[in-house]
Amino acid sequence: MSLDSIAAAIAVSIAALGASIGNGMVISKTIESIARQPELEGKLRMTMFLGVGLIEAIPIMAVVIAFILVFR
Amino acid sequence: MSLDSIAAAIAVSIAALGASIGNGMVISKTIESIARQPELEGKLRMTMFLGVGLIEAIPIMAVVIAFILVFR
Amino acid sequence: MSLDSIAAAIAVSIAALGASIGNGMVISKTIESIARQPELEGKLRMTMFLGVGLIEAIPIMAVVIAFILVFR
Amino acid sequence: MSLDSIAAAIAVSIAALGASIGNGMVISKTIESIARQPELEGKLRMTMFLGVGLIEAIPIMAVVIAFILVFR
Amino acid sequence: MSLDSIAAAIAVSIAALGASIGNGMVISKTIESIARQPELEGKLRMTMFLGVGLIEAIPIMAVVIAFILVFR
Amino acid sequence: MSLDSIAAAIAVSIAALGASIGNGMVISKTIESIARQPELEGKLRMTMFLGVGLIEAIPIMAVVIAFILVFR
Amino acid sequence: MSLDSIAAAIAVSIAALGASIGNGMVISKTIESIARQPELEGKLRMTMFLGVGLIEAIPIMAVVIAFILVFR
Amino acid sequence: MSLDSIAAAIAVSIAALGASIGNGMVISKTIESIARQPELEGKLRMTMFLGVGLIEAIPIMAVVIAFILVFR
Amino acid sequence: MSLDSIAAAIAVSIAALGASIGNGMVISKTIESIARQPELEGKLRMTMFLGVGLIEAIPIMAVVIAFILVFR
Amino acid sequence: MSLDSIAAAIAVSIAALGASIGNGMVISKTIESIARQPELEGKLRMTMFLGVGLIEAIPIMAVVIAFILVFR
Amino acid sequence: MSLDSIAAAIAVSIAALGASIGNGMVISKTIESIARQPELEGKLRMTMFLGVGLIEAIPIMAVVIAFILVFR
Amino acid sequence: MSLDSIAAAIAVSIAALGASIGNGMVISKTIESIARQPELEGKLRMTMFLGVGLIEAIPIMAVVIAFILVFR
Amino acid sequence: MSLDSIAAAIAVSIAALGASIGNGMVISKTIESIARQPELEGKLRMTMFLGVGLIEAIPIMAVVIAFILVFR
Amino acid sequence: MSLDSIAAAIAVSIAALGASIGNGMVISKTIESIARQPELEGKLRMTMFLGVGLIEAIPIMAVVIAFILVFR
Repeated sequence: MSLDSIAAAIAVSIAALGASIGNGMVISKTIESIARQPELEGKLRMTMFLGVGLIEAIPIMAVVIAFILVFR
Repeated sequence: MSLDSIAAAIAVSIAALGASIGNGMVISKTIESIARQPELEGKLRMTMFLGVGLIEAIPIMAVVIAFILVFR
Repeated sequence: MSLDSIAAAIAVSIAALGASIGNGMVISKTIESIARQPELEGKLRMTMFLGVGLIEAIPIMAVVIAFILVFR
Repeated sequence: MSLDSIAAAIAVSIAALGASIGNGMVISKTIESIARQPELEGKLRMTMFLGVGLIEAIPIMAVVIAFILVFR
Repeated sequence: MSLDSIAAAIAVSIAALGASIGNGMVISKTIESIARQPELEGKLRMTMFLGVGLIEAIPIMAVVIAFILVFR
Repeated sequence: MSLDSIAAAIAVSIAALGASIGNGMVISKTIESIARQPELEGKLRMTMFLGVGLIEAIPIMAVVIAFILVFR
Repeated sequence: MSLDSIAAAIAVSIAALGASIGNGMVISKTIESIARQPELEGKLRMTMFLGVGLIEAIPIMAVVIAFILVFR
Repeated sequence: MSLDSIAAAIAVSIAALGASIGNGMVISKTIESIARQPELEGKLRMTMFLGVGLIEAIPIMAVVIAFILVFR
Repeated sequence: MSLDSIAAAIAVSIAALGASIGNGMVISKTIESIARQPELEGKLRMTMFLGVGLIEAIPIMAVVIAFILVFR
Repeated sequence: MSLDSIAAAIAVSIAALGASIGNGMVISKTIESIARQPELEGKLRMTMFLGVGLIEAIPIMAVVIAFILVFR
Repeated sequence: MSLDSIAAAIAVSIAALGASIGNGMVISKTIESIARQPELEGKLRMTMFLGVGLIEAIPIMAVVIAFILVFR
Repeated sequence: MSLDSIAAAIAVSIAALGASIGNGMVISKTIESIARQPELEGKLRMTMFLGVGLIEAIPIMAVVIAFILVFR
Repeated sequence: MSLDSIAAAIAVSIAALGASIGNGMVISKTIESIARQPELEGKLRMTMFLGVGLIEAIPIMAVVIAFILVFR
Repeated sequence: MSLDSIAAAIAVSIAALGASIGNGMVISKTIESIARQPELEGKLRMTMFLGVGLIEAIPIMAVVIAFILVFR
């Protein structure tokens, strides 16, 4: 039972670490690009949303597995 | 019982580490960009709030799991 | 039984870490490139989707293995 | 009981490490930006306070969990 | 039995980490190159597909070994 | 009892490591900025004090938890 | 028996990590070079195939050893 | 008893590592700045003393805790 | 018996990691150099083959030792 | 008794590692600055002595604790 | 007996890792230098052979020790 | 008795690692500076001797503790 | 007996790693320098031999200790 | 008895690693400087010998301690 908790913690925390770093790279580059070309704000922000969605696909799986491990 | 505490600590602390680094990248880039183009402050800060929200999505899950592990 | 949970957690979290970093590299470079040449947006975004798909091929396998380990 | 102490220590210390690094990035960039454009000091410092608040959101959760683990 | 699960998890997750980083390097360089010379898009994308295929040769082996370890 | 000591040591030492690195980033940037624009010394030093205070908020929590663990 | 699985997993996954990084270096440099001098595409791609073959010589050995460990 | 010694050693040595790196960053930047603008020597050295004092606030706590652990 | 498998896996996988990185450095530099001076292709490729041979001398020893450990 | 020795070794060696790196940063920067502005040699060397003294404050504490642990 | 195998594997694999990195540095620099000054090819390649021989002196010792450990 | 040997080895080897890196930074910077301004050779070498002496102060303590642990 | 083998393996392999990296730095810098000033080849190669000899002084000690541990 | 061997191996190998890196930094910088100013060869090589001697002071202590541990 308790090892399940450890497993859930590993799954969700390393996934959060990865997603934060990946999102941080994408979003900080977006902000830098908007500052350079403010007229492209719409395009860049849309690509940012797409990118964040794609990055979080796998970490969300880790969160789902963590919840399964916690509640079963 | 005690292993649950360790699991909660791992979950919340590594998530905090990740979120801090990711947010630090985004916010420091925002400040740099505002200093370069102060007239874009509104747009940049809005993208910053969006970005911080997106970054903290997964770590918040880790905090939720940590609270579940602590209080059950 | 419990070691299976640990195994699923390792599989899904390290895969999520890898996929996030790889996707972060590709998407942030895409956003940078769109900001430089907005007229190439279509081409660049299509290559981005292809690239994200190719990157996530192996991590998806890790997620599949993690689900198998959790539910059997 | 004692494992709870270890858990509290892990939670609060890694969260402090993360928050310090994230805050350090934001504040040192703010100081650099004020030195370049002193007339923007107000805007930059306000964004800095916002940013530090956003960064410390998750580590504060870790502190709360650490106190719960210590005092229960 | 359970050690087999751990073995499968190690095999597939570290392979996913490696493949993601390798693919990320190749695809982000491809996107950068297309942005610089859009008329070479075909050539570059073909080399990218070749490269991703070559990179994923060994990780696919790791996935195969992981499935063997899980299902036997 | 003794594990409490280890926990206190982990809490206070990793917090000290984090705070030292974060403060080092902020203060060395302040000194560099004063050397470039000595007439802004007051503003920069005030932001430095604010920043050091904000950075040390979480490590101070770690010190408090360490003292609680040592003296109870 | 089970330690053999762990051994196979270590062998194939670290080899996959190494091969992915090595191949990623070679292929991304090839794509960059083709973008600069498209008329050398043939020569560069041939050297790339040679290089990928040479790099994968040792990892293939690791895959072979992993299969031997799994099936004996 | 002996675990207390280990705890004291961890507390004081990692704190010393952190303080040395943080101080090294601040003082080497001060020396570089004095070499560039020797007429600011007074201001820079005063900020350096302030900075070293602020950096060593948390490590001193670690030393205090180490002495308590050694002598009780 | 089983520890021999672990030993073989360590030997061959770390050797594969090292050889991949070393070869990756040499071959990517060769490709870069051919792109700059295509008329030197023969000389550069010959030095590359020599270099890859010299680099793989020690890893091949590791593979030999791994096969001895697996089959005895 | 023997764990005390390990504790003393950890305390003094990590403190020595930290102090060496911190001092190395300060002294190499001093030598670089003297080479650029030899007429400031006195001022720079005095700041260097101050800096080395401040850096070694915490490691000296570690040495003291190590001697206490060895001789009690 | 089996610990001897582990020892041989450690000796030969870390030596292979070191030799590969060292040789990779030397050979890739040689190829870069030949590309810049092709008329010095002889001199550079001779120094490369000398260098590779000198680098592999210690790793060869590790291989010898590994064979002694395997066959005794 | 034997743990004392391990302690002495840890103390002296990590101190040697730290001192070597610190000294390497200082001495390589000195050689670079002498090459740029050979007329300052005396001053620079004197500062180098001072610096090496200051750096080795703490590692010498580690050596002393190691000898005490070995011979008592 | 077997722990002696592990000790010999650690001694010779980490020494080989260190010597390879140190030699790689020196020899690759020598090759770069010969390519820039081929008329200094004699001087540079002589300093290289001196340097490699000085670097290998300590690793040779490690090899000697490893042989003593293996054959006694 | 056997733990003494491990201790000797740790002492001599990490010291060899440190000394190799430190010497590599100093000697490669010397070779670079001789290539730039060949008329300073004497001065630079003398400082190099001094520097290597100073760097190897602490590692030699580690070698001495390792021999004491092996032969007593």
